[in-house]
Amino acid sequence: YGRYTQDLGSFAKDEAARLRLQEGDTPRPRRPSELLEYTQGRCAPCRVCALQCQRFLISKVGEDWVFLILLGLVMALVSWAMDFAIATCLQAQKWMYGGLDTNVLLQYMAWVTYPTVLITFSAGFTQILAPQAVGSGIPEMKTILRGVVLKEYLTLKTFVAKVIGLTCALGSGMPLGKEGPFVHIASMCAALLSRFLSLFGGFYENEARNIEMLAAACAVGVGCCFAAPIGGVLFSIEVTSTFFAVRNYWRGFFAATFSAFIFRVLAVWNKDEETITALFKTRFRLDFPFDLQELPAFAVIGIASGFGGALFVYLNRKIVQFMRRQKTINRFLMKKRLLFPALVTLIISTLTFPPGFGQFMAGQLTQKDTLVTLFDNQTWAKQGISDEFEYLGILEAWHHPRSNVFITLVVFILMKFWMSALATTIPVPCGAFMPVFVIGAAFGRLVGESMAAWFPDGIHTDSNIYRIVPGGYAVVGAAALSGAVTHTVSTAVIVFELTGQISHILPVMIAVILANAVAQSLQPSLYDSIIRIKKLPYLPELGWGHHEKYNVRVEDIMVRDIHYVTLNCKYRDLQQVLHSTKMKNLPLVESAESMILLGSIERTQVGALLSSQLSPQRRLLTLRQKALSEDGHRLSDSSIRFQISTETSSGSPARPALRKPLKPALKRVPSSPPDSPPVGSADHSGIALKSLFCANAATEPTEVRGMDDPDFSIRACVRRMGRPLLALVRRPYTLPGPMAPPQILEWEEQQLDQLVDFSSAKIDPAPFQLVEHTSLHKTHTIFSLLGLDHAFVTSIGRLVGMVTLKELRKAIEGSLTGKGVKVRPPLASFRDSTASTTEADTTALHQLWDRHQHHHMPREAGPGGDDDDDTPK
Amino acid sequence: YGRYTQDLGSFAKDEAARLRLQEGDTPRPRRPSELLEYTQGRCAPCRVCALQCQRFLISKVGEDWVFLILLGLVMALVSWAMDFAIATCLQAQKWMYGGLDTNVLLQYMAWVTYPTVLITFSAGFTQILAPQAVGSGIPEMKTILRGVVLKEYLTLKTFVAKVIGLTCALGSGMPLGKEGPFVHIASMCAALLSRFLSLFGGFYENEARNIEMLAAACAVGVGCCFAAPIGGVLFSIEVTSTFFAVRNYWRGFFAATFSAFIFRVLAVWNKDEETITALFKTRFRLDFPFDLQELPAFAVIGIASGFGGALFVYLNRKIVQFMRRQKTINRFLMKKRLLFPALVTLIISTLTFPPGFGQFMAGQLTQKDTLVTLFDNQTWAKQGISDEFEYLGILEAWHHPRSNVFITLVVFILMKFWMSALATTIPVPCGAFMPVFVIGAAFGRLVGESMAAWFPDGIHTDSNIYRIVPGGYAVVGAAALSGAVTHTVSTAVIVFELTGQISHILPVMIAVILANAVAQSLQPSLYDSIIRIKKLPYLPELGWGHHEKYNVRVEDIMVRDIHYVTLNCKYRDLQQVLHSTKMKNLPLVESAESMILLGSIERTQVGALLSSQLSPQRRLLTLRQKALSEDGHRLSDSSIRFQISTETSSGSPARPALRKPLKPALKRVPSSPPDSPPVGSADHSGIALKSLFCANAATEPTEVRGMDDPDFSIRACVRRMGRPLLALVRRPYTLPGPMAPPQILEWEEQQLDQLVDFSSAKIDPAPFQLVEHTSLHKTHTIFSLLGLDHAFVTSIGRLVGMVTLKELRKAIEGSLTGKGVKVRPPLASFRDSTASTTEADTTALHQLWDRHQHHHMPREAGPGGDDDDDTPK
Repeated sequence: YGRYTQDLGSFAKDEAARLRLQEGDTPRPRRPSELLEYTQGRCAPCRVCALQCQRFLISKVGEDWVFLILLGLVMALVSWAMDFAIATCLQAQKWMYGGLDTNVLLQYMAWVTYPTVLITFSAGFTQILAPQAVGSGIPEMKTILRGVVLKEYLTLKTFVAKVIGLTCALGSGMPLGKEGPFVHIASMCAALLSRFLSLFGGFYENEARNIEMLAAACAVGVGCCFAAPIGGVLFSIEVTSTFFAVRNYWRGFFAATFSAFIFRVLAVWNKDEETITALFKTRFRLDFPFDLQELPAFAVIGIASGFGGALFVYLNRKIVQFMRRQKTINRFLMKKRLLFPALVTLIISTLTFPPGFGQFMAGQLTQKDTLVTLFDNQTWAKQGISDEFEYLGILEAWHHPRSNVFITLVVFILMKFWMSALATTIPVPCGAFMPVFVIGAAFGRLVGESMAAWFPDGIHTDSNIYRIVPGGYAVVGAAALSGAVTHTVSTAVIVFELTGQISHILPVMIAVILANAVAQSLQPSLYDSIIRIKKLPYLPELGWGHHEKYNVRVEDIMVRDIHYVTLNCKYRDLQQVLHSTKMKNLPLVESAESMILLGSIERTQVGALLSSQLSPQRRLLTLRQKALSEDGHRLSDSSIRFQISTETSSGSPARPALRKPLKPALKRVPSSPPDSPPVGSADHSGIALKSLFCANAATEPTEVRGMDDPDFSIRACVRRMGRPLLALVRRPYTLPGPMAPPQILEWEEQQLDQLVDFSSAKIDPAPFQLVEHTSLHKTHTIFSLLGLDHAFVTSIGRLVGMVTLKELRKAIEGSLTGKGVKVRPPLASFRDSTASTTEADTTALHQLWDRHQHHHMPREAGPGGDDDDDTPK
Repeated sequence: YGRYTQDLGSFAKDEAARLRLQEGDTPRPRRPSELLEYTQGRCAPCRVCALQCQRFLISKVGEDWVFLILLGLVMALVSWAMDFAIATCLQAQKWMYGGLDTNVLLQYMAWVTYPTVLITFSAGFTQILAPQAVGSGIPEMKTILRGVVLKEYLTLKTFVAKVIGLTCALGSGMPLGKEGPFVHIASMCAALLSRFLSLFGGFYENEARNIEMLAAACAVGVGCCFAAPIGGVLFSIEVTSTFFAVRNYWRGFFAATFSAFIFRVLAVWNKDEETITALFKTRFRLDFPFDLQELPAFAVIGIASGFGGALFVYLNRKIVQFMRRQKTINRFLMKKRLLFPALVTLIISTLTFPPGFGQFMAGQLTQKDTLVTLFDNQTWAKQGISDEFEYLGILEAWHHPRSNVFITLVVFILMKFWMSALATTIPVPCGAFMPVFVIGAAFGRLVGESMAAWFPDGIHTDSNIYRIVPGGYAVVGAAALSGAVTHTVSTAVIVFELTGQISHILPVMIAVILANAVAQSLQPSLYDSIIRIKKLPYLPELGWGHHEKYNVRVEDIMVRDIHYVTLNCKYRDLQQVLHSTKMKNLPLVESAESMILLGSIERTQVGALLSSQLSPQRRLLTLRQKALSEDGHRLSDSSIRFQISTETSSGSPARPALRKPLKPALKRVPSSPPDSPPVGSADHSGIALKSLFCANAATEPTEVRGMDDPDFSIRACVRRMGRPLLALVRRPYTLPGPMAPPQILEWEEQQLDQLVDFSSAKIDPAPFQLVEHTSLHKTHTIFSLLGLDHAFVTSIGRLVGMVTLKELRKAIEGSLTGKGVKVRPPLASFRDSTASTTEADTTALHQLWDRHQHHHMPREAGPGGDDDDDTPK
């Protein structure tokens, strides 16, 4: 149907043009099926039918909900299969450990070797297949959802590496989590699915839609990891977005619910569960979940968790920075990349070895078992009651004959804290949410047990005895610490969905909010911390309640001394601008006097303009034309033939700064004698068209060269052209010989003095503009809303400055810390804003106005002046 | 301290100016306290101390969290007090009804009169005090949060009217809700609190901040109404926002949690509850909440609720439209405004009269009791078991000796459905959430009871018998129907928080999502429906998965034929533009040839320019000047004195289209003889300055006149000026006499031919610009993100069109229904977007370029041309 589609395309264009012309009347355009019938006569009906069926299917496949269901289904399967594999791995370790109970040394070997091998394999596999799969992935998703394209982060290779690497890493029993990586996995799954479905319809190509789908995928990732659809949606919003479109909300809910449902149904079908319930179901009493007088204890948990969370983020960052800074360690580790993971695993697993130090910290429990025991319904420490509490089943791990449960808990918390902070720096796919969650639960349990020991019969003394439920404290602690580390409130919702009980809602909310308040004032979130370490392009959040952001204005932070391109500039000016600035986008103004902003042009486009002006092709063409004018039409049009690689025709309007270097689109084949016909010589009629097309595409290779080389200098380009390389190749043709270097230089100087022809350059016709007195707060909002990385500051059409992400970042960090960028003094709010800015505007306008009013009589004396000039004084 | 602040102000201005000049160095500006010490010597220290204390307090009061705590506290108190008053009202009715059980007629009179009086009072009170308090308030809040200023919706009067009106309306026992009004009440509370706190510091003036606080207030409203902090935040986001700033999230959570906490603590202190628990606590079993095989039943509830919700919205709208359309009814009701509420109340309370028809629909239960019974743990209908179920306590209302519970439930649902739809149209403060919630619960209960009757021993047949829990179905039904009516998913979270159990999370989520899917495809949400009825300025949402929105472009929907103002136009042109268009904002272009967009100017500003040019003052001034040049300096500068009302100096840069008319800022006092000194004559030195200032403000009154009068025409202005009114007043001065009308006309014609001086007009220097090929989807996003109501379409600086909210609305509704505006055919996606648009841009650029290149040699022949021109063909 190749030709058919082409027909349709041109038909559509005509239709669109016609419609645009006749905007008044409303006849429906002829449907393409009618067109088909009209042109193809009798055999058409069945084709029409088939086509309509196909179109129906495509239109259905294009629906969002099909995509979301598929995404949810796939992710639920992945999550369930991974859980199954992880459980098997852990089972195997336990089995080995249990089977070798005759010899402690053998036991130790088995206990230590198994995770070391798994982690090393995971690190090596990830390193080889896709290093992008390392780490949590949430920081990268946050950056991608801001509109930045990160190469290779959403590919099949990364998907495979992340899934297998994560399974191995978690199967090792290290304190690592699956939640962050799952956000990344779900996003990759969405991207792949989107690419797969685009085979059926062109709808999946849209960039805005892809971003929306990625946002939904993040929700699915959390949702199917914890079987927590609501918490998943909220957590993914908090963690990845700055501004959230409420119309995307249902997408996340729909997909996450479906995914969580399938995830739990798989467990039922596998006979793990009798019916669909929560993942870590608790059974606290409903009548009297907690006493009002226990609230201070919950608040203490919240505040302590806030400090703990900040400490965790700090520790994690310091470990990474220490590893980087120590050059000897670093050099050694760079050589033996797998040594660091193996070493860390060795240390951690040695310390958790159950017959060794592990007996003081419940070392034999897996992460899941630990959580189950911590959320347990019973009170472990009972005082004053004769019958000693019996630790049954897996609870036994917390019991040590020669110490009590408080010591075990304290040791567990302290050890796990640094272990988790260390383990999450291993270069394998891993998250930190779950380890932190467990530590928080243990801390909550500790407080709860202490409270239970303090008030054995509960606090409430009216009528009934309501004992204290330490499990409830564990739930509160888990939510608070994980909320503090990630700077989210939605961990509260996640614990409700994980435990299946919402009766502790108020304590949980209070603790989470307090923990957030403390942690946010001390440290960035774990993900922001990683973003800073990895130096991803980000925009810091505005902090809580800093007033200065309302008083700092764009005019205080903008760069005033900007380089620009004028419409009537010469190539020499372009060259100079490229030399003098590193800006990625150059403003295009009407003229240096008026400074009216017309648009913005990319640096690479300017480079392309310059190099095409100075290109050897043009030089040769000039020479050839000279020769032509002398020799008449000695050269026929068939003397040069173009071979076109079809790739260029599929060039999509992607972000040029990040697209792959195009393969050289244009290859000049030497003028072939008639006895050796090239492959494409049959369609001679198309040559004129193709050569025309190629000529348009001719600037591409140079443009790309300029892109890859950030220090692209024209001198280098000139030097490269100085070599008579191409000219030598050209010698076989009947063309005049190459110029001598002095001639070339002269020609170039002459070329540089010509006026620039912007018609072949791509110009952004409506770059984003701000006004001088826009507040920092509003600027931040607009930048994060629209995902900008620069904006021009204009005043009535005139360009006066520019703000980039860099300035904004500096200003925000400056206004928060009081250092760095100069912020307006607090008194600035006293300044009468309207008066001063209106004045400035008026002045600017006046300049413009005066420029147009040279023939007008002087303003002071004329009747057109303001009253103030004429009022007698 | 009046003078002191002035000093500070000017000091700050100087400092700011100095800082702006010396951007390089960083000496800290002298603190104002130092300045104080320097200037005031010895008695300063204590003053400094006091000042610092005061400043510390102010800075603390300025913090967000203080505001949020106060807001939460106040709203919790309001909510609790209102609940208490409502409960008392309902108790009183019950007591009256119970006390008169000897005579049915008297009982009936009491049952009917009581609510009628209350509703009538509520309607009358609201009508008199603040008609804005009528209805739910959520549609208005949605509009306000979009950036539109609705007058009088956030005042103290409205607050009082809404609180008292709502208490009376709910106390009557009608099927009305308190949730929607509470969103409004909380917002008003926030606005008032903000205004109150601004007495302590200037920080509360910021508009962006106020919007953020209003968003938090909406969350508080829902949160303290249901004691549901999380659901409150989510519901308020879904209902009021299109784009949500995640940084506002914590504000909502913080305030709503605090509010819900206080709300429940008040109940504990009042001994209503033993501890903090959910509002409608359920006690379903936790082990096996529901069977996997019950899910189809839940799905059925969801789908049916979707249809039901759409029907409810439709019914509600039809009732309103019917009341409006029926002219006889309408005229009658307009005269007797209180008759309609009284009539509706009479009908509804007659039907619910317990000894009458009410016995078939549990008429004696209040809304709260109904919910408690519907969420009950037991199964009402048991078959095949000998012992009949005993209806104890309030459950008895559902039991009718001569019918069974199914009939009662069906009757209840049917009757309440239309009653609720009708009752919510009464002009009192009322919401529809709670009535719908109750109907949904009853429907769910009906399905649950049917399931329980169908499977008496549960579906699960493996080992244990798990009976079906009809109360769980009621919870699902309540969430689904209220979700369908409001188009929200967060009702799911609200029911979890209301019932204190989350075990039914998956059924609830599935039902809510299905209900939303059905309802959203049939009808707008209740709030959007009200927005349409009330014709508030809104932007419809983009529907689910309509692909066309990606293919329709701005160039398809924009208005091409726009009127503009050029920089070098004459007053006559302004006059013509004002005559020919109704646009509120006129683009200002450089010239008609270049069409370079410089800014936008408001219609009213243009009017002000024109009328100031033609103002009698100017005419007189001209005359006076003529006289002056003849008579020399006969008039001294003291002959005219200005009296300044201080209001003008506090003019903030508010939205000019909506600010209140300024009081005439300038009053000319007749030239006073020296024996009657005016009040302000002491400071003679300031007159020159003040008169200068006044002259600047002189255009204000006319400007305001133009604003209030939308059909402001220059002719009318001219006619008004034709009257020699002012000139008559002027006659006492030593000025030449008034012009004769022909003279005036001549003078005006002459004035109209002058070039416009824009220096006194306010120009928006950076109006929002779009590009021709921006998609409808992106345009919608940008409009709702930034709260725009118009945008100019430019192409490399040139103005080519304009899009307003109207066009956008038409296009969206057109693309959804296929009617109305002409949408691009589906084939448009085949069109090669890059090629065509780049071409258009290039053409536009060429025009500009050519304009500047007249001296340049023709492009086709020159060496600066593209390769395609020179390639031999």
